[in-house]
Amino acid sequence: MKTLIKNGTVVNATGTASADVLIDGDTIAAVLAPGSTLLGFDIERNVDTVIDATGKYVIPGGIDAHTHMEMPFGGTQASDTFETGTRAAAWGGTTSIVDFVVQYPEEQVLDRYHAWQEKAAGNCAIDYGFHQILSDVQDASLTAMDELIDEGVTSFKLFMAYKGVFLSDDGQILRAFQKGADNGAMMMMHAENGAIIDVLVKQALEAGNTSPYYHGLTRPWQAEEEATHRAIMIADLTGAPLYVVHVSAKQAVEQIAAARDRGLNVFGETCPQYLYLSLEDQLGAPGFEGAKWVCSTPLRSKHEGHQHHMWQSLRTNDIQMVSTDHCPFCMKDQKEMGVGDFSKIPNGIGSVEHRMDLMYQGVVTGQITLPRWVELTSTTPARMFGMYGKKGVIQPGADGDIVVYDPNGHTSIGLGTDPSGAPTGRTHHMNMDYSAWEGYEIDGHVDTVLSRGKVIVDESGYIGTKGDGRYIKRGLSQYLI
Amino acid sequence: MKTLIKNGTVVNATGTASADVLIDGDTIAAVLAPGSTLLGFDIERNVDTVIDATGKYVIPGGIDAHTHMEMPFGGTQASDTFETGTRAAAWGGTTSIVDFVVQYPEEQVLDRYHAWQEKAAGNCAIDYGFHQILSDVQDASLTAMDELIDEGVTSFKLFMAYKGVFLSDDGQILRAFQKGADNGAMMMMHAENGAIIDVLVKQALEAGNTSPYYHGLTRPWQAEEEATHRAIMIADLTGAPLYVVHVSAKQAVEQIAAARDRGLNVFGETCPQYLYLSLEDQLGAPGFEGAKWVCSTPLRSKHEGHQHHMWQSLRTNDIQMVSTDHCPFCMKDQKEMGVGDFSKIPNGIGSVEHRMDLMYQGVVTGQITLPRWVELTSTTPARMFGMYGKKGVIQPGADGDIVVYDPNGHTSIGLGTDPSGAPTGRTHHMNMDYSAWEGYEIDGHVDTVLSRGKVIVDESGYIGTKGDGRYIKRGLSQYLI
Amino acid sequence: MKTLIKNGTVVNATGTASADVLIDGDTIAAVLAPGSTLLGFDIERNVDTVIDATGKYVIPGGIDAHTHMEMPFGGTQASDTFETGTRAAAWGGTTSIVDFVVQYPEEQVLDRYHAWQEKAAGNCAIDYGFHQILSDVQDASLTAMDELIDEGVTSFKLFMAYKGVFLSDDGQILRAFQKGADNGAMMMMHAENGAIIDVLVKQALEAGNTSPYYHGLTRPWQAEEEATHRAIMIADLTGAPLYVVHVSAKQAVEQIAAARDRGLNVFGETCPQYLYLSLEDQLGAPGFEGAKWVCSTPLRSKHEGHQHHMWQSLRTNDIQMVSTDHCPFCMKDQKEMGVGDFSKIPNGIGSVEHRMDLMYQGVVTGQITLPRWVELTSTTPARMFGMYGKKGVIQPGADGDIVVYDPNGHTSIGLGTDPSGAPTGRTHHMNMDYSAWEGYEIDGHVDTVLSRGKVIVDESGYIGTKGDGRYIKRGLSQYLI
Amino acid sequence: MKTLIKNGTVVNATGTASADVLIDGDTIAAVLAPGSTLLGFDIERNVDTVIDATGKYVIPGGIDAHTHMEMPFGGTQASDTFETGTRAAAWGGTTSIVDFVVQYPEEQVLDRYHAWQEKAAGNCAIDYGFHQILSDVQDASLTAMDELIDEGVTSFKLFMAYKGVFLSDDGQILRAFQKGADNGAMMMMHAENGAIIDVLVKQALEAGNTSPYYHGLTRPWQAEEEATHRAIMIADLTGAPLYVVHVSAKQAVEQIAAARDRGLNVFGETCPQYLYLSLEDQLGAPGFEGAKWVCSTPLRSKHEGHQHHMWQSLRTNDIQMVSTDHCPFCMKDQKEMGVGDFSKIPNGIGSVEHRMDLMYQGVVTGQITLPRWVELTSTTPARMFGMYGKKGVIQPGADGDIVVYDPNGHTSIGLGTDPSGAPTGRTHHMNMDYSAWEGYEIDGHVDTVLSRGKVIVDESGYIGTKGDGRYIKRGLSQYLI
Repeated sequence: MKTLIKNGTVVNATGTASADVLIDGDTIAAVLAPGSTLLGFDIERNVDTVIDATGKYVIPGGIDAHTHMEMPFGGTQASDTFETGTRAAAWGGTTSIVDFVVQYPEEQVLDRYHAWQEKAAGNCAIDYGFHQILSDVQDASLTAMDELIDEGVTSFKLFMAYKGVFLSDDGQILRAFQKGADNGAMMMMHAENGAIIDVLVKQALEAGNTSPYYHGLTRPWQAEEEATHRAIMIADLTGAPLYVVHVSAKQAVEQIAAARDRGLNVFGETCPQYLYLSLEDQLGAPGFEGAKWVCSTPLRSKHEGHQHHMWQSLRTNDIQMVSTDHCPFCMKDQKEMGVGDFSKIPNGIGSVEHRMDLMYQGVVTGQITLPRWVELTSTTPARMFGMYGKKGVIQPGADGDIVVYDPNGHTSIGLGTDPSGAPTGRTHHMNMDYSAWEGYEIDGHVDTVLSRGKVIVDESGYIGTKGDGRYIKRGLSQYLI
Repeated sequence: MKTLIKNGTVVNATGTASADVLIDGDTIAAVLAPGSTLLGFDIERNVDTVIDATGKYVIPGGIDAHTHMEMPFGGTQASDTFETGTRAAAWGGTTSIVDFVVQYPEEQVLDRYHAWQEKAAGNCAIDYGFHQILSDVQDASLTAMDELIDEGVTSFKLFMAYKGVFLSDDGQILRAFQKGADNGAMMMMHAENGAIIDVLVKQALEAGNTSPYYHGLTRPWQAEEEATHRAIMIADLTGAPLYVVHVSAKQAVEQIAAARDRGLNVFGETCPQYLYLSLEDQLGAPGFEGAKWVCSTPLRSKHEGHQHHMWQSLRTNDIQMVSTDHCPFCMKDQKEMGVGDFSKIPNGIGSVEHRMDLMYQGVVTGQITLPRWVELTSTTPARMFGMYGKKGVIQPGADGDIVVYDPNGHTSIGLGTDPSGAPTGRTHHMNMDYSAWEGYEIDGHVDTVLSRGKVIVDESGYIGTKGDGRYIKRGLSQYLI
Repeated sequence: MKTLIKNGTVVNATGTASADVLIDGDTIAAVLAPGSTLLGFDIERNVDTVIDATGKYVIPGGIDAHTHMEMPFGGTQASDTFETGTRAAAWGGTTSIVDFVVQYPEEQVLDRYHAWQEKAAGNCAIDYGFHQILSDVQDASLTAMDELIDEGVTSFKLFMAYKGVFLSDDGQILRAFQKGADNGAMMMMHAENGAIIDVLVKQALEAGNTSPYYHGLTRPWQAEEEATHRAIMIADLTGAPLYVVHVSAKQAVEQIAAARDRGLNVFGETCPQYLYLSLEDQLGAPGFEGAKWVCSTPLRSKHEGHQHHMWQSLRTNDIQMVSTDHCPFCMKDQKEMGVGDFSKIPNGIGSVEHRMDLMYQGVVTGQITLPRWVELTSTTPARMFGMYGKKGVIQPGADGDIVVYDPNGHTSIGLGTDPSGAPTGRTHHMNMDYSAWEGYEIDGHVDTVLSRGKVIVDESGYIGTKGDGRYIKRGLSQYLI
Repeated sequence: MKTLIKNGTVVNATGTASADVLIDGDTIAAVLAPGSTLLGFDIERNVDTVIDATGKYVIPGGIDAHTHMEMPFGGTQASDTFETGTRAAAWGGTTSIVDFVVQYPEEQVLDRYHAWQEKAAGNCAIDYGFHQILSDVQDASLTAMDELIDEGVTSFKLFMAYKGVFLSDDGQILRAFQKGADNGAMMMMHAENGAIIDVLVKQALEAGNTSPYYHGLTRPWQAEEEATHRAIMIADLTGAPLYVVHVSAKQAVEQIAAARDRGLNVFGETCPQYLYLSLEDQLGAPGFEGAKWVCSTPLRSKHEGHQHHMWQSLRTNDIQMVSTDHCPFCMKDQKEMGVGDFSKIPNGIGSVEHRMDLMYQGVVTGQITLPRWVELTSTTPARMFGMYGKKGVIQPGADGDIVVYDPNGHTSIGLGTDPSGAPTGRTHHMNMDYSAWEGYEIDGHVDTVLSRGKVIVDESGYIGTKGDGRYIKRGLSQYLI
């Protein structure tokens, strides 16, 4: 299959170009000056498909480096399967995800890795890679880190919270980081002080403070700042590269920025919810409504300026990328587990479908530039996690993962309506019975999505096939300094 | 003229690609997967020239955003003319310079601009743009800023030192920055507290401390840090973007980094001399030898860690680019003016020819990565000063400014020798009777240089023609956040 | 004259003691356990006067280290003479002031010093010392610094604002600081960037923004922060001790705190107006009312948290003392000079009478502790400016400068009323036709004031005599680290 | 007993006074102008004892707020009993200690408190108070905190290291700090990340690195900085006052200084060993010699500037006091337990006898001022731990705890010699078979020591009686802001 995307504005991380893109089979064959010819050779005539991108942006497909498809957690599991979740991602212009293999205590790492490979195999709409969660750092797990790197799993996530489930103590973190410093793996960290949070949660419940709002109050910014700092110091001590996931507190950002100014390989990711949503407006919604936005780290107070500072940190590169931490749960039967006890609400928000749009809206409002949009959502994720060259850039040899984005289009998130205004059901494609983003209006639209050269979304919607997506065998980070 | 550069490794700011580059006329027509064919069309056969870059890097031509060709200063003038200076630049893989038009007090800005256009016209080996120095900020000069932007001069340099020659007081700086905030111009600053320096110089001379070493001692880091901070606060107050030139003190870097962390459009440039050379080893050379390295800001003490910290700041992007501040003077008749009084030594070092090599050596020694080399020397300069798209990147539509760089080649700077070891004269091509870089050995080599599609340097050396270079009409900065 | 103050709570900078204080002649003879006897010797019977301080605080008399009595400025002069001003100070529990001798350009320092000695001699109600303002730093002024130290003038104030009147350029500041580093003098700084302010003022007036509110807007915090930083760097370079006067911006405090954390002898003073008053509430008062609070540095915005942060800095010792910058002007004929042009409003607020009360109110509201009150208003001023031992502490050998302060008393500032509620005229004793502090209520009261052993204020009011006050020949700072 | 100390220079925290001090019974009756008379009354004739302090300093007795007499630890116990340790303290001018009651896991807090009261009762040469160590934070321990405050134990120490022995997890720390915020207790912290250290120690031993030097290497500054920061954040979250014990790393100091600049009640203590000794010179001594200086936090590298920075922090009040962490062990049978395994060396250095001298030497060398010496060693300890008024100051009503210190005397620490130069045995009086301070020469001498009005040390040496010392029932901290 040969496809020419013509007359668009190609956007890469450092700027734009008026250029045509030729895809031959899986990969990009050429990026060319517009005109559909080369030295007199008529390209348009020699391809199978021509996509006219006049007036539109041609961008490398989005890479969501933080998803949890069908993750088992707290007696239930995330409501999106690899099938539904990756299909929703495709709808939203994301052509790669990196999902998390979960090791729970006493489980063997490689067993879990193989189990996850099996879950995903043949089900995905787009390409997928894996990070490995380590919840039981001991000799065998450390050895497995080397083996997984050979398998293309080059990043390992630890937790400083969730005792008995995910939590590693500082000695375990030290050992894992020593291994990371040695074999070059990226060490990822859920940075919240779980011991503190556990006490605060217990005290809140004992005091009868059971509503979702208290999920936020019992995970104060100090718990995040502290853990972030601690992880940084262990990175400093060992020399391991560190990637802090879902940063939400401005004070945590400041710790990351300070580490960076000291020359360390310390990076941070944020998520759309920490840019747009707040403790007061969402978690504090009436009744049990706030449960929709229960995730960890939690939404922060709008009175403390976290959201404002987070946008700024995206501009200054103190935060390097935006992922979703996509971990959807339905209200019914799932979130509802926490009625009367917020600590039982499954933690997670579903955004994999909306990330590209939500971040593009930041371009519209002037928070970030157009190239920065691509850098935050695609190029840096690719570099950070060892996929660049194949992913994250429009250049010859790269996979044909391309999105044609229309800045004159429009996307409404939430309840759709027919021309008469009558509701037509939810507009999203994630397997959720509510939307965390209902009511958001985006001044842009994902028109066409190609995954490795195949059009999987066009004006008619998703036209791909289950199993189009392949496993991404990743290399070591290409973002280290 | 159609040229194919085949089988090389194309390096852009975010990474590399195995790709062929096709140049048609002045500009890049396509970047293609290697193989010299496209959909069966044989490209190699349809071009005039094929350059085999196997095993070599294909990079966007260097951009030196800080040069002073034939600048009149202190009763003499910089020894390189636009002709000799740009030719030397070409030898070294630099295909664009941005030079400084000088306004001295009571001169009309536009007069000077036209004078500089005349000096350069028809003489340059490579493309050239202009910044404008303002030494007399008053209403007419501010009006001229708007006019110059239309001419493609979108950056304006002020001085906080050199009283009676260049110095603007803080009120003048404020007014110019207000204009910059208004019309989008980049405000550039020579950030040293001249009033302090003038006293220290006078005191040193009165005490009989007349050797070049005292040039360094009388320009302490506090004078640079202070001025840097002051400029930042005026930028903060007005909202103007600020670019601090030739940063040499680590404390100044810290001020820039702090401003950045606060979300300001504040940037810094350093030069090779601040990465490699020191107060003790160069300025403190015996006798009058140190005069070779008299430049301002001065070389800093190696015991204070400035050089080490400066490399780090290049990695962390706390310093965004590397220029040369190329301002050569010969020892004879020029530097010698300062025998017995260091303050009369013309300030300047000549490096325009060596910047790409010296920075590549940082790749060899592991100080920076390969893409960062390109970013620091070409991509960011292009973005910072409104040339990106045409310059600073290898993509369709860009000018055919390309360097083929051989990582297996070697470059010796200094006195050449014939096979018998006999000296063959200086290896450099700048119009200087000494080299500030004598003895430096580079593990790489500029093999081929194309300027707008024309090969101007090949294995036989410089083969271009005086006047190949054209004026670059720049736009506003593309690097603002 | 022998006086016993019995049964009070003596408050020093580190804590309190239940103790009697015996004053014999000018000085304190003993501090004794309460009971009025010593080893059986009946003290009470052997003294001339007994003051019962039961339930009251016995504190070292207040030291206001920043006053401008009868200062000539801008075509008028401060409305308090040494006579009226020091008498008002006495009313308010202040027993020493350090006033400023003014050198204007081209004046001889020693001439001015002698002139000020003459103005004060025989007129003061309390003891007084002098700082010297240098507005013309050249060789003769520097020499005079040494001579003045012998005269007991050991601190020298420079200005970074008021061009043509007070302003020193950075070279002059450097030279004066070098002298201070050499002879141990404390260098005081009015830290505002005058060049910036002059432009902003001119622009505001040209734009028709002439009301007092614009006095605040044209002296932004950046101008203060910048100048503070600059002064610190010159102190760093020279080794001189630095005392920044009337700090009002939190960012300036941060600069001082950072300098301190680096081990420098850098100190800051604030004034009651920067703790209690704001740009919006006072400078922004309707009509020309705001003129009452026109002083420089200006009152800061309450929305930016300066006042809150300033109280904090008093607690953390990031700001070391509280003076008044007492510089009163009447509305009539004086402040009124600036109707239609805020820049013509004489700069100054009168507070010398209220400082002890206003700061005591900070004890009442929990902002500072009781010992800290004494430290900020008396002990540190004495140490900072070389008076400790004689002033600033209740211990044998110290001057009998003592205030009996009643925490159960009350002080209303503003318009007094008779029992029927009818107005009885202004309550203050400063020579001003308005009060900057009208409406402030203090939960404490100055009951008795002794100056060198003589009661000058008692329940009947001021009972001293013009000329009670003597010149304080100060030594070098006793606060340096 | 009535004693007059005449003609000395009384030194308090803010300065000095020429004054006589009269002690009547236990307490100071008066501080008087020199001359031994008061209003004609001849004091000297009416007292029992006159001490002539001409040319000498009269200072409040030293307070060592961190000692571990006869502490059981690691299968042995500290070699000084309350008897030998307090006697040695007296020799060195320390008249109060605050020792630590130890709760080990599963022990009842009050039981331990009573046991410690019993150990000390009747044995001490000087007054003593107690802090309480909590190693088992649960409900009963928290309740005991309230009870102990009534007993005069108002400070509680937790550990972030020594798992299974002392360590509290962050949840326990949080709960204890919440209690401290509530009842006003000072929370003390041993701030080292034990989990990290345990791994490093294990790895070092496995690698055969068993010598005392590795004690230092396995407790890197990052472990101290991290724990310090963590404790600060829990203090921030709860509002508890925090006192970090034995700070040795400059980075930990920076954390404390930053917390302070943010307005928190966070304080730090250092010890003489962190000012004078180093990893290289002491821990790195040949063979097993380094064991003499094995203490935790460990001695730091002299190449990293910790010692220099620590002196600076004493000047800037970023560190507020100097204690000893006196915890002596003999080489024989005790330190020797760690031959072949540094982790088995009992941790501790004995300095209780030398603190006043060692810190005075800092006055001699210009590191600190004379009043600062008193503040660091006596006044602030008294204020910090609720003893001020009775202790830490020379003023009426205070306990007669006074040291006459001779700045013209001399003290040699180490092996004494007779006039012929023959060794006469160790000069110290602590129950140790070596001295950590051998070879230190002090340009000053403790001449006379009074404890509650009784001379216990004079020119003949220690003349007190076992049991002179009484329990100090402390109040809440008087140092909070």
